[in-house]
Amino acid sequence: MRQFVICAHEATADSEFSLDDLPGEGGRMDLLCRAVGAALFTSHGIRDARVHLVIEDLTVQFDGATARNLNPDARSTAARVRDALDSRADAIGHQPATVSPGVKLYRTGLATTLDRLDGTLVQLHEDGTPLATVDPPANPVFVLSDHRDFTDEEATLLADRADQRLRVGPRAIHADHAVAVTHNWLDTDGYTDYEG
Amino acid sequence: MRQFVICAHEATADSEFSLDDLPGEGGRMDLLCRAVGAALFTSHGIRDARVHLVIEDLTVQFDGATARNLNPDARSTAARVRDALDSRADAIGHQPATVSPGVKLYRTGLATTLDRLDGTLVQLHEDGTPLATVDPPANPVFVLSDHRDFTDEEATLLADRADQRLRVGPRAIHADHAVAVTHNWLDTDGYTDYEG
Repeated sequence: MRQFVICAHEATADSEFSLDDLPGEGGRMDLLCRAVGAALFTSHGIRDARVHLVIEDLTVQFDGATARNLNPDARSTAARVRDALDSRADAIGHQPATVSPGVKLYRTGLATTLDRLDGTLVQLHEDGTPLATVDPPANPVFVLSDHRDFTDEEATLLADRADQRLRVGPRAIHADHAVAVTHNWLDTDGYTDYEG
Repeated sequence: MRQFVICAHEATADSEFSLDDLPGEGGRMDLLCRAVGAALFTSHGIRDARVHLVIEDLTVQFDGATARNLNPDARSTAARVRDALDSRADAIGHQPATVSPGVKLYRTGLATTLDRLDGTLVQLHEDGTPLATVDPPANPVFVLSDHRDFTDEEATLLADRADQRLRVGPRAIHADHAVAVTHNWLDTDGYTDYEG
């Protein structure tokens, strides 16, 4: 399975943002939700993929295999994120709250979220190894940042734990576009198979 | 320069859609605007690229080089599209209306819009040649569809005119993700240069 961990830096665990102002009040929630959509959706279907959206010490998990009534537009995804953040009282210890089918809230930040995930931990980073020169791992867990760089604390954590550090291209691109590029790299088995 | 022509099929030239319901009232305006964003934006900058969003017999043109105050979220892009559709009375013959810096409205549909564009016309299509097996052209004009297939009329037009027919991968993906993949293919000079 493919998994994506997206680290938010401007969005807060306070769920009181307006769906009409995702970039401002939402702290670039538009970008985060586009990244969730890029991880989960194909043109007319949903991928067997998971996204872990880390906002401060909370993690909203989207599971493509069990999700229902998710839509690719940012506004509707943001509404799910808001519901998830609202349900934090129902998450106890390491037990998540189930927000809606396929959407859970964990009261865990980045370190504990990474502890929970199995697979090859891949940090997407502008100084990494070029994507096209590496064989795609079987169960990748991609970690990427929003519009800001990883914090020093996150960078140290990932330096310790990441199995691979990969670069998607020569230019810094938005998180949702980086997700689209990595999916395409996996879909084509490293740009070698376009038949599937 | 890179150009993207995006053919809308559910959106209408009637500009009376709510920004709160881009998928429904807007006729998948969310998807169209994400595709515009994917064509224009890098993480902290704007590309020297143009997007031509064809909605019925109107074309909204976004020019990255001259655009001002554009934002990557779909809602704000949709507001610009709505303004553009509203300004159709100011577009006369083949002279566009200038909606805001970098945004113009042409009273032309797909055929006449393609007549106006110089470059290598590339149709993104699921039966095309794999992207990774082709050298990127210098001035590509990518033509892609929204969530629906090209109409018979569009398909015939493109069969006549397209210089290349390329496939981005084995799975049908959203237009914005296809745009992200093609940008990455060009940014890396066909997956060979990750230094830029």
